[in-house]
Amino acid sequence: MSDGNGFTPVCPLPIQEYPHVLLAHGGGGRLMHQLIDAIASTFASAELARRHDGAALRIGDMRLAFTTDAFVVQPLFFPGGDIGKLAVCGTVNDLAMCGARPLYLSVSFILEEGLSMETLGRVVASMQAAAHEAGVEIVTGDTKVVDRGKGDGIFISTAGIGVIEHDRPIGPEAVRPGDAVLLSGDIGRHGIAIMAVREGLAFETEITSDCAPLAAPVLKLLEAGVAVHCLRDLTRGGLAAALVEIAQTAGLHIQLDEAAIPVRPEVQSACELLGIDPLYVANEGRFVAFVPEAEAERALSILQTEPVSADARVIGHVTADGPAGLVTLRTAIGTTRVLDLLSGEQLPRIC
Amino acid sequence: MSDGNGFTPVCPLPIQEYPHVLLAHGGGGRLMHQLIDAIASTFASAELARRHDGAALRIGDMRLAFTTDAFVVQPLFFPGGDIGKLAVCGTVNDLAMCGARPLYLSVSFILEEGLSMETLGRVVASMQAAAHEAGVEIVTGDTKVVDRGKGDGIFISTAGIGVIEHDRPIGPEAVRPGDAVLLSGDIGRHGIAIMAVREGLAFETEITSDCAPLAAPVLKLLEAGVAVHCLRDLTRGGLAAALVEIAQTAGLHIQLDEAAIPVRPEVQSACELLGIDPLYVANEGRFVAFVPEAEAERALSILQTEPVSADARVIGHVTADGPAGLVTLRTAIGTTRVLDLLSGEQLPRIC
Repeated sequence: MSDGNGFTPVCPLPIQEYPHVLLAHGGGGRLMHQLIDAIASTFASAELARRHDGAALRIGDMRLAFTTDAFVVQPLFFPGGDIGKLAVCGTVNDLAMCGARPLYLSVSFILEEGLSMETLGRVVASMQAAAHEAGVEIVTGDTKVVDRGKGDGIFISTAGIGVIEHDRPIGPEAVRPGDAVLLSGDIGRHGIAIMAVREGLAFETEITSDCAPLAAPVLKLLEAGVAVHCLRDLTRGGLAAALVEIAQTAGLHIQLDEAAIPVRPEVQSACELLGIDPLYVANEGRFVAFVPEAEAERALSILQTEPVSADARVIGHVTADGPAGLVTLRTAIGTTRVLDLLSGEQLPRIC
Repeated sequence: MSDGNGFTPVCPLPIQEYPHVLLAHGGGGRLMHQLIDAIASTFASAELARRHDGAALRIGDMRLAFTTDAFVVQPLFFPGGDIGKLAVCGTVNDLAMCGARPLYLSVSFILEEGLSMETLGRVVASMQAAAHEAGVEIVTGDTKVVDRGKGDGIFISTAGIGVIEHDRPIGPEAVRPGDAVLLSGDIGRHGIAIMAVREGLAFETEITSDCAPLAAPVLKLLEAGVAVHCLRDLTRGGLAAALVEIAQTAGLHIQLDEAAIPVRPEVQSACELLGIDPLYVANEGRFVAFVPEAEAERALSILQTEPVSADARVIGHVTADGPAGLVTLRTAIGTTRVLDLLSGEQLPRIC
C-alpha cells in the first residue's frame, strides 16, 4: 500500500530464517524479541522513545503512559487467578512499570463459538473485581465471535492509560553503576501454577499464581522520592530475560546473588521435576526496581509495607567493571554462571 | 473473587436463554447488543457516560477519547484492504465518531503457529501505511502466539487515544426533532466485498471495500462550527442497525427516503443474488451525521470537499410526531417499511 507520496512501509521480518511463525515466537526468548523488534521498527516514530512496557506520550500538558497486551493463557482458570484477572493485572503492571498511575482500561474479547456463557460471566466478573482492586476503571470494549475451532475459548486484549506524575526518566538507560537490584518477592509461581494444572501435576502444597496488581508499591516508591532508575515486571522469560534485556540496553554488568533470590520450596521441587529453571519462569505479580545503593534500604522498607511486595529484598548490583551487557549469577555453591536469553520458550501460553 | 469488602461483581449474561456463545453474538444484531450490554453493565462506572464507540475521559485539563476493537476478518486480504488496514481504520473511526482527533494507537497481535511470516509482514506494513494516511502513530504493542488450530492466522486488537477539542455533546441524546440525517457515501461495499471473496463470487465489476479513515471529514465539520448532534460509523449491522440504535436511545422517529440512499448497481445486484439487504451490510468507511436542518446544506458542502465523503447526501430527517424510537423507510415504490435490528447476523466475521 502506498499513500501516493511514495510511502510504502516494509516490515523487516526474518522471512528467510523463519518462513513461518513458531510457538517459540511468543515465548519470551530471543525469537520473540526478534519478531517484536521487526514489527516495532515498522511502526516506530522518531519522536517516541521505544519502551519495553508501553509508550510515554505528551498530550497537552499531560504526560501519559499507554500500553496493550493480549492474553491467550490456557487453562482459562488456574490456582490464584484466571485469564480475566491476568488481563487486568498485566496491563495495570505495564503502566506501573512506566512509572505511571494506572487510570483507565479498554478490553476486547475474541470468543469462540460454543463457549459457555457461565465461563464468560465468571471471567468478566473477575476482571471487574481485579479492576476494583487495582483502582482502575474498564471504560470501553469490544466483542467478536469466531467459528468453533478457530479460537480457544476466550482471548482478551486489554489496553491501558495511566498518568505520569513525576519527571524522572525510568528505564534501562537510567541504570547506573552501583545501583542495587531489588526484587519484590519470590519467583516462579505463576508459570509453575499454570504448568501444574496443564500437566495434571499435584504437589503436596498447591502452587498458586502470584498474579497481582503492582501499582501500589511502585507509586509508593515514587511518591517517597526514591530515585528509581528502572522498573520491570517479570513476565514471559522470567527474572533472567528481564535482567538480560536491561543489562544489554544499559551496557552494564549485573551481578546477582543466587542465594538472595527467593524461590518457594514447592516451586523449586516442581522446577526440578519439570527440568525448568525458576529464573526463566514467568511471574505476573513480581518486579525488579533499580535504585542507587544509598537508597536501597529505604526503598526496601517502603516496598515491605505493601502486601504484594512484603518479601522484597536486594538480589544484586550493577557494576561498571564487570563484562558490559552481561548478567552473572554467583551460585549457592560459589561458582559463577552467565544468564542469557533462551532462544524459544519453556512454557507456551502462560499469559 | 472478592476484595474483602464484600465486592463481588456479577455479570448478568443471559445464561438461561443462551447457555453458549453463538456466532450470532458477534453479528451486530440484537444478540450482540444483549451480550455487550451485560458485559458493559458489569464494568460500568457511575461517573462515565456509556458511549457506543468509546469512552470520553477527563484527565487533568484534557478531554480524551479512548476506544478499542478486535478484528477477526476472514479472509485476511480482500479487495480494497486487509485485516491490518481495517484494524487501524476501525479504531481511528471510533475515535472520530466520538468527535475526537485520533492521535495514538496500540496494537496487539494473536498469531497462529504456522502463519506465514510474509503474510504477517504485509499486514504490519499495511497497518503502518494506514496509520500514516490517517495521521496517527502506532506507539505500543504486544504479540502472542497460539498453537496451530487454536486461532485463525491473525487476530488484531487495536486501541486508540484521541483528543476532544470542542465542548459539544455528541451522541444520540443530543439528536433533536428536525435534524437532518447525512450519509457520507454509498453503502454495502465492505460486507459484500468480503462475502464475494469468501464465496468465490465474481462480478462484472470488482466490488472493493470502502475501508477508509473518517477523521478528516468529521474534524472539518467540527472545525467549521457545524452543530453536529450525533455521529456514527456504519459497521456491523450496517446503516439500519446504527439508525435503529440512535432512534431508540434518542426516543425519536427517524424517517428515511430509500431513493436517497446510494447503493452501487454491482452491490445491489450482489445483494439480490445473496438475498441480503444492503441496509444491514457492514461498511468500514461510511458514517452518518445528525445536524440541524438549517445547517444541512453547509455540512454537505464541507463533507463533499473530502474524497472519502465526496458523495455525501441527506437521506432522512428526525421527527417528533412519528412513532418514537422507530426508523421508517419510504421505499422507492411509495410504501413505508419499519427497520428493526436483526436478531443475529447476515455475514459473520466481516471485521
